[in-house]
Amino acid sequence: MTASPTLDTAEPNPPDTGTRLSQTGRVEAFSDGVMAIAITLLVLDLKVPSDAETRGAGSLIAAMGQHWPSYLAYLAAFLTIGIIWLNHRAFVDKIRRFDSRLHWLNLALLLGIATLPFPTALLAAYLAEGGAPASTAAVVYGLLSVATALPWTLMWRHIVRHPELLEPPFDVDHARAELRRASIGPLIYVLAVPLDLFLPLAALLFYIAIAVLYAITNQGVQASTT
Amino acid sequence: MTASPTLDTAEPNPPDTGTRLSQTGRVEAFSDGVMAIAITLLVLDLKVPSDAETRGAGSLIAAMGQHWPSYLAYLAAFLTIGIIWLNHRAFVDKIRRFDSRLHWLNLALLLGIATLPFPTALLAAYLAEGGAPASTAAVVYGLLSVATALPWTLMWRHIVRHPELLEPPFDVDHARAELRRASIGPLIYVLAVPLDLFLPLAALLFYIAIAVLYAITNQGVQASTT
Amino acid sequence: MTASPTLDTAEPNPPDTGTRLSQTGRVEAFSDGVMAIAITLLVLDLKVPSDAETRGAGSLIAAMGQHWPSYLAYLAAFLTIGIIWLNHRAFVDKIRRFDSRLHWLNLALLLGIATLPFPTALLAAYLAEGGAPASTAAVVYGLLSVATALPWTLMWRHIVRHPELLEPPFDVDHARAELRRASIGPLIYVLAVPLDLFLPLAALLFYIAIAVLYAITNQGVQASTT
Amino acid sequence: MTASPTLDTAEPNPPDTGTRLSQTGRVEAFSDGVMAIAITLLVLDLKVPSDAETRGAGSLIAAMGQHWPSYLAYLAAFLTIGIIWLNHRAFVDKIRRFDSRLHWLNLALLLGIATLPFPTALLAAYLAEGGAPASTAAVVYGLLSVATALPWTLMWRHIVRHPELLEPPFDVDHARAELRRASIGPLIYVLAVPLDLFLPLAALLFYIAIAVLYAITNQGVQASTT
Repeated sequence: MTASPTLDTAEPNPPDTGTRLSQTGRVEAFSDGVMAIAITLLVLDLKVPSDAETRGAGSLIAAMGQHWPSYLAYLAAFLTIGIIWLNHRAFVDKIRRFDSRLHWLNLALLLGIATLPFPTALLAAYLAEGGAPASTAAVVYGLLSVATALPWTLMWRHIVRHPELLEPPFDVDHARAELRRASIGPLIYVLAVPLDLFLPLAALLFYIAIAVLYAITNQGVQASTT
Repeated sequence: MTASPTLDTAEPNPPDTGTRLSQTGRVEAFSDGVMAIAITLLVLDLKVPSDAETRGAGSLIAAMGQHWPSYLAYLAAFLTIGIIWLNHRAFVDKIRRFDSRLHWLNLALLLGIATLPFPTALLAAYLAEGGAPASTAAVVYGLLSVATALPWTLMWRHIVRHPELLEPPFDVDHARAELRRASIGPLIYVLAVPLDLFLPLAALLFYIAIAVLYAITNQGVQASTT
Repeated sequence: MTASPTLDTAEPNPPDTGTRLSQTGRVEAFSDGVMAIAITLLVLDLKVPSDAETRGAGSLIAAMGQHWPSYLAYLAAFLTIGIIWLNHRAFVDKIRRFDSRLHWLNLALLLGIATLPFPTALLAAYLAEGGAPASTAAVVYGLLSVATALPWTLMWRHIVRHPELLEPPFDVDHARAELRRASIGPLIYVLAVPLDLFLPLAALLFYIAIAVLYAITNQGVQASTT
Repeated sequence: MTASPTLDTAEPNPPDTGTRLSQTGRVEAFSDGVMAIAITLLVLDLKVPSDAETRGAGSLIAAMGQHWPSYLAYLAAFLTIGIIWLNHRAFVDKIRRFDSRLHWLNLALLLGIATLPFPTALLAAYLAEGGAPASTAAVVYGLLSVATALPWTLMWRHIVRHPELLEPPFDVDHARAELRRASIGPLIYVLAVPLDLFLPLAALLFYIAIAVLYAITNQGVQASTT
């Protein structure tokens, strides 16, 4: 590569009119990437029925019908990640700077999101079967939901202590209000674990319902309406 | 992490010359991510013939020839997502701000796009076989096309009612023109469903054709020509 | 959502200090996404030997050794996409605006890149075996290389005719020089097709070699050295 | 497309208020993409137990328990890529411009990261089994760790020689300090290879431990605390 400087003289320099993304800009980019990929990878669990299944069920439509839990789980997981993205976008809009702890909590959140396709696949495989395996799959989904809701609480608790991380005009009072709201999520998900155990299908519908409810009433989403 | 402030004093602060992406910037980033992933995941359905298939067909080229529907479906789906991306880019250029409803309609659009690899795989698996399974696969592809065209109509209907979401100089008259154009898409796709049912291969070629036609005549693409 | 305006009054507006990406910015983002995904999906073709293979080969290391073509093909494809990305980045730096035709040619380029994991998997599966299947796999890889090199030629030919698309200080003379260089690529790849046919392994090593050579002598990469 | 200029007159031009990303901005975007995808693809190796496995193990939970190495390897790989991303972000913040050599070293780094899901899958498949295959899998993981740590050393060595690549106020003294730190990584990973060979499980825990330790004490992460 030592020859390059000589060769380069023939080439006009591109004008450096570029702009550097802010620190939060790059957290957004990476987080958006992980969420966009996780939400799109879910489709890999929508199984195409095999020839044997189609013949066994009598028709392709009947064979697909037997996979209904995978379509329901797909919808629930897509909705969940979509809503987390909306909240994440609104969250980062309020943050001026990510410190080390916020970075780690954000990574913990992304770990939860990136792992979501796994319990979704578990539910797709075992929900229709019912019994203990369906309960196990739903509990794994439920525990991961708790683990994905928890970082929000911890992030807002950290911001309440370090309000200098907030983008003005957001202040410590706003952070306290967010912390109260963010504390409800993990609580609801913990309380839903017994439902996973005894009524796995109802639990899945419940997760869809609270996702939608959360979306409608959540400040994060509403912030973008103003 | 409480020790960090002390350790940090040794480290010069990087200059914060960064720029924050606008709200629409982040919608673009997430949507681009989902579309880029969906379009690239399609390749996973281009199956490498197994050793057994190659021996059975006499040659690798003959074995690949038996998979022609998967190559055709790959091309159709790639073209479809590519065109949606071009339109999405032109769409977001005209929007000043995403409100809550636009976010949800955009998520519905992304759900359609992210799900597209599934009916593409269905077509790849059952198109060559013909008969009822091929028709079923084509109808599923067709219904998803309707579901992916519908959010455009709803987004423009919402913007006609809230022209303050438009980036000047685009105004309510422009939005009305876009709404008229965006209403044709779902209609065409609904009318194509009987074609899916009776002539699945012709339907696939028809989808490729209208995609190309739409691309050539569409304002979205032309906007970038000016 | 009609209740939102009322609820929103409690929420301070986030300051809209955001910046909108330029048109080329979004082409970059989508293209980068497709290339980043294609380059990362390649790893899915690095097969973990099954228990049976490991026992059959005597050790895991011997079983992995039998998969050497997949590691070589992985390296070649990773290098190829990496270099295309470097060139693409340098290319977009020289473009002020994408018109409709450039968008379509860029999509054609992305189609080639996104499809590359398929012939890579073909080579991984059939290269070690030799004979006609290995030749077929190499020819498919070679033809896709032609198809991926061609859009560069067409893009520069279009820019020579529309120099107003160039970012100053780049001018039509620069575009003509780029067109000459971009015309060599497809030619080399066409000439390599007979090599694919008769010496598939040598062809793969040849692709790695010209990729490296192209990278070292290419203006695109050098532009970033200045 | 020659008809477009005529059609276009009816369309108001979108205002070009856009901003172009800087050169480092686009390296960030591509690198973030590769890291986001690699970290999210890891979930594909979290295998859903088959019906047969579940029946054989007595319950879904017991069947999942038999897959514990895949969960541990998932956690280790997720943590590793997450930390590399944090370091990469801090690294790019200090760089004013990528020259040709930095681009190639960055590609080498991305090659290591993109390949990580492969030894992770090897570990998941062979760690529980123990014996020679587990050692082989751990050594492959270890050698890839060396190969991923090495580009950091080479990048800082290059910057020490070309301090004009640094974003002020970072200077050659800072680069020298970074080079010393970046030289420790490959050394530790080389020394860990014997551990891979004789105690593969302990090696995996060791990788998790040094990742966490590195994260806590690393300048990169701390830079974002200031």
